[in-house]
Formats: sequence, C-alpha cells, structure tokens
Amino acid sequence: MGRSRRIYFDGSIWFSGENGSRTEVIDQRFLPFKTVIFGIESVEDAFYAIREMVVRGAPLIGVTAAFGMYFALKNSGCNDLKCLSDAADYLNSSRPTAVNLFFATQSMLNVYSPQETRENNLLALFSEAATIRQEEINSCRMIGEYGLPMIEEIWNNNRLRPVQILTHCNAGWLACVKYGTATAPVYLAHEKGIPVHVWIDETRPRNQGARLTAYELGLAGIPHTVIPDNAGGHLMQHGMVDMVIVGSDRTTSNGDVANKTGTYLKALAATDNNIPFYVALPSSSIDWNQEDGVRNILIEERSPEEVATIEGWNGKKIVRIRLIPGNSTAANYGFDVTPARLVSGLITERGICNASKEGIAGLFPEKFVH
Amino acid sequence: MGRSRRIYFDGSIWFSGENGSRTEVIDQRFLPFKTVIFGIESVEDAFYAIREMVVRGAPLIGVTAAFGMYFALKNSGCNDLKCLSDAADYLNSSRPTAVNLFFATQSMLNVYSPQETRENNLLALFSEAATIRQEEINSCRMIGEYGLPMIEEIWNNNRLRPVQILTHCNAGWLACVKYGTATAPVYLAHEKGIPVHVWIDETRPRNQGARLTAYELGLAGIPHTVIPDNAGGHLMQHGMVDMVIVGSDRTTSNGDVANKTGTYLKALAATDNNIPFYVALPSSSIDWNQEDGVRNILIEERSPEEVATIEGWNGKKIVRIRLIPGNSTAANYGFDVTPARLVSGLITERGICNASKEGIAGLFPEKFVH
Repeated sequence: MGRSRRIYFDGSIWFSGENGSRTEVIDQRFLPFKTVIFGIESVEDAFYAIREMVVRGAPLIGVTAAFGMYFALKNSGCNDLKCLSDAADYLNSSRPTAVNLFFATQSMLNVYSPQETRENNLLALFSEAATIRQEEINSCRMIGEYGLPMIEEIWNNNRLRPVQILTHCNAGWLACVKYGTATAPVYLAHEKGIPVHVWIDETRPRNQGARLTAYELGLAGIPHTVIPDNAGGHLMQHGMVDMVIVGSDRTTSNGDVANKTGTYLKALAATDNNIPFYVALPSSSIDWNQEDGVRNILIEERSPEEVATIEGWNGKKIVRIRLIPGNSTAANYGFDVTPARLVSGLITERGICNASKEGIAGLFPEKFVH
Repeated sequence: MGRSRRIYFDGSIWFSGENGSRTEVIDQRFLPFKTVIFGIESVEDAFYAIREMVVRGAPLIGVTAAFGMYFALKNSGCNDLKCLSDAADYLNSSRPTAVNLFFATQSMLNVYSPQETRENNLLALFSEAATIRQEEINSCRMIGEYGLPMIEEIWNNNRLRPVQILTHCNAGWLACVKYGTATAPVYLAHEKGIPVHVWIDETRPRNQGARLTAYELGLAGIPHTVIPDNAGGHLMQHGMVDMVIVGSDRTTSNGDVANKTGTYLKALAATDNNIPFYVALPSSSIDWNQEDGVRNILIEERSPEEVATIEGWNGKKIVRIRLIPGNSTAANYGFDVTPARLVSGLITERGICNASKEGIAGLFPEKFVH
C-alpha cells in the first residue's frame, strides 16, 4: 500500500510515539503537491496547527484542540483548573468561527477533576481526546449511511449517466478524521458501485476544493472535475447537477449554515433551479444557543494577502504569486451564512431533518429541553 | 503625463503608422504587471488578438474585427467580395459568444461595393472601422450619462459613506475603447466628485477583475477592493453593496444577459437582498433575433488549463502555476446567462429600460418593425 493510500486509511489525525507522547496530522498547506507530516507535542503546536491551517475543517479542528488540551496539562507540570482553562482560552482564540473548537475544549475541561491525581487527569484527558476523535469518525460514517439513499435514488431514477454532485470547499476526511461530512455519502455510494461524478468548486481564496477535495477524491478513485466558483450556476441551469452537498462550520439551532464563503451563492442557484441543496454536519458543529445566523454569526476576516496572492506548484515547489496591481487592496471574508430557507435538509449522524428548529429538535430533542 | 495615464486617454485601441498602415492595442494578457503594445497589421493579427485574448470585451472585439476586415482587403491585393467574406468567416470563428464580432464584420461587408475601385473600397472600409470605434466611445459616454443619476441618488440618500458598487469581470474601457460600459457611470460619478468605492470580483478563471478592472480604477484614482468571486453574497447580506453594475457579452431581445461566468450568481444574490442589479451595454451587443438566452445562447467552453493553472507575478515576471492535483481534470465554461427576471434594468446608450422585450422595444423601436 502506498504512503498516500495508507494515510487515507489512517485518517487525518493519528497517534504516534509511546504513551501518547505525540499526535500527528497531515500538513494540509502542502497538499496536493507534497505529503508532509506535522507533529503536535504541545498546546502551542496545536494552536499553530489550527491558526495557520495546517489542519482545517470543523471536526478536525475540534480533535486537534482536544489533543492540544491534553498536551497543555502534560507539558505544564501543573494539575490545576486555571492551567487548563488558560489553555482553553488560548485555543479558542485560534479560529473564532469554529464552534467545535469551543465544544472540544469544554469537553476536555469537563473531564478534569481537582480531586484526582495528575496522572489520572492525564489519562482522562487523553482518553477523552481519543473518544472525541472516534466519535467524529462514527458521526461521519453515520452521515454517509443516511445520505447514501438519496444518491441511490437519483441513480435509480436515471441510469444514463453518473450521479452529478456539486460540492464547495473541503468537507472530506481531510476536514474530519475519516469519510468526511459532505463527501461521506459519496464515498459510500462509490464503495457500493453507484457511478458518481463530483463537480468541485475550487473555493477561492484558499482553494481547498481544487487542492484538498480533488486530492481526496483522486486517492479514492472517484471521478471529479474542478470548476471555478463562478461556474456552478451555469451547470445547474443546464441540468448538469443532480444534488449539492456541502459541509458546515457552524449551524444555528434554526438551521442557518455558516460555511466557507460562496456557499450561499450556490444555495441560491440550487433553489433557483429546484436542485436539492443538502448540508452534511456532525451535531457537534451545531450551535444550540444561536439563532438567525445571518445576523448573529461573526464572520472571520482573514488576511487580504490570501486574495491578493495565490499558492500553487511551479513544477518544483509551492510558490505564491501576486494577482492584483501593486497599488490595489483586497478583502477576505472567510465564511458566509446560508439562510435555512435555502437548505433542503441537514444530514446528521442521527438522520436527515429539515433545516428548521422543529426539524433539528426532532432529531436532537435532548438539546431543546429547558 | 505618464505612459499609462496617456493610454487611459487614448483608449484601448488606436491608429498608428501612416495612412492606416497599423492599429495598436494594449496587450491585455500582461496587465496589470506590464504595459505591452500589440500591433495589428493583418487579418491574422486581428484573429490572434481576439482568439488569444490580447483584446477582450465585446465592444473592443468588434472594433478589432473591423480593423481586421480592413487589413484583409488591404493585404490580399484583391477587390472581390469572396476575399472579404472569407475574412469575415475567419474572424467570426475566433470567439463564438461575442455577437459584436458578427455585427462588425457584417458592417464592414456592407460598405464594400463591387462597382468601386479597390482604392475607394479600402478608404470606405477604413472609414467604417474608424466610425465603429468612435460609435463605441459615444455609446459608452451615453451609458455613463444615463447611469450617473442612479449613483447620484444613492449618494444623496446616504452621505455617510461612499456609494458601494459591485462589479464582475472587466466591463471598463479596456473592454471597450473609452469609459467602458459597467464602469462608465462610476467614472462620471468620480469626475463629478461623488465618493464611490467599487468591490471588484476577481473573476476566475482569467481574473479580469483582479487584473484589469483593478488596474483601470487604480489609474483613475477610484477607491476599490478586490474580492474573491465567492464574497459578493456575504457583502450583499450585510448592506455593504448599494448597487451591482455588470457588462454583457450578449443580451437577447427579451433581456436575458450572457456575461462572464458567475454573473448569474451575483444577480441571484442581489435579487435575494433587494439590491439593484443593472447591466450596462451598448445596443451593438443586443442579439435582436434571439430569445430565451438560458436555452439558446451557446456557451463557449474554454481550455481547462485556465482553471487548472493561474497566472500571476512572481516579483520578476508573469508565471503560470498549477492549482489542482496532477491526476485531476478541470472544466471551463466561459459565460453564463442571467435571466431577465433577475435584472433591474439595462443601461444603454439611449437610456435605461426594463430587461424585457417591451422595455427594449421602447428604446429601440426600429429593431422591432417587421
């Protein structure tokens, strides 16, 4: 089995070294051009990995932060709550839009007990981080199982060509641990022998679609075509898309979806052309206390340099080149919010529901008990 | 006056040499990083300039084709219709979406007369090409005059910040000869002292917004910010866009608008947020015999390499780098069609009208007489 193929089976984050001394991730900044492993052995490593997008995607960010909390306790030599809650604040500041981050650090805080020995707390934290990782894998697998019948139905209704799925950004296993969210139904369909073809939005400015989703699907042998973010509307107008599936960085309790900038434009086009627009998400990315995402979700402004320049492969190495005139400026809003009214449904690890408070409460009633 | 500033006043295509021996254009492939002049002295030069996008934009393509027809007669030594109509067919094949191309070559064919001497035909053709050029300048100026009051009104209603205009691709003077279409009202507002700020979609895959519109507005001293094509929806949701103005490569007689791919997505977002979405166009780009643009306009598929790779400035020269994995493919649909129902109005050289058969017929009744 080749190295890349092995990584596909390990997932995007794994244990290395003895006694939980090291966690490793794929440094996604070098994909798809080079496969580089990044070691995490401290909370600072975890912060750096999240902030600098060595890792990205809500689930993987959460898992990385969880291990960061473990290393914070391990390396500090202390055994008190302040040490851990400082680490949580620090990690939470690395990517303000990723709600999984807050859940993960909170879960880690919750397993700490001042009555326990430092050794037992370390074991509890390591075990909790490993559990969060495994739960993300299980969630993605379930999302795939629930999404699969929709793809199967499209195939059964028209076997003249592969099922055409459009996705934006990367909500694959590189963003999670395994399977991915938006891609999970696609992987399971492919495994089941249903012909699928994926239109991948390149997803400027950071091109996660062109770089990561294309890399992932390529490894799995799934036919795909990279398109400019501008092209989806045209494809949908002409019957070349059967279904849109995207991921979500944060979903409000009424079903508004914050995802990579440009998602909203695809949802508008899908609605205008009566094409199903589904959002796949683990419930860990639902913000149960938030409504009206368009108004209330703070959208991260990232460096304008990500727009003014672009990274690619010059044949020898990854280089960054300038795209705009020397005296022009750029702006970089990292996400946008797709209102629930444009979302056909949410695919979660507990099933598919309407993008509404009632729909979500139907699957997760325990979250709405006051 | 600096070289670039002088070019701004000459426009994008001008006469050079004695007795109409040469036409010159800015080679737009090198902008905004280098200003290179491209000479046109033959029909092959004109074909190359259009096909390879040395020149782009419907009006400038038409003017370039007109001069190409003149050079076809001049260089061939012949004085018969076949020689000219072969040249027209050849030029028409260079960019199938640009209807101005067909109008320009037809106008040139119309002034040829088999009864006249070769010398007189040459004079007539040169004069017709110069007239087409001047008419494009006049059209753009009038589009500016008709569009200006809308910007003025937005300013008068809210003087707390500059008027925020979003545009896609390049429909400025680099696409025309002077003023541009979508940018003409902006230039006139700026000249009149109305504060304006333009959000420029970078316009992947060829980045005409990031490269050309930003360059143009920079030369004119107009504040602007380059954004990814994905960002416009977010800006519109948050009241950061007062008006969208785009150009058009081809408009059907019922008001459907073919323009650079991605325009349709911005029209959907503008409609969803009650933001005026205007299309500025010279009537020379209206296809009077065509209706239902979504169904009937043939969309040019360009090279996938434009998507798989990108051009930019590495600090020393323009280079092209790869954006997608080595074993992935890409697709490149050059245009899309925005249905008339999403267009607030058409700004033409005769005034503003509804994007409908009735609206267009009100301004151009002579085109609807049968």
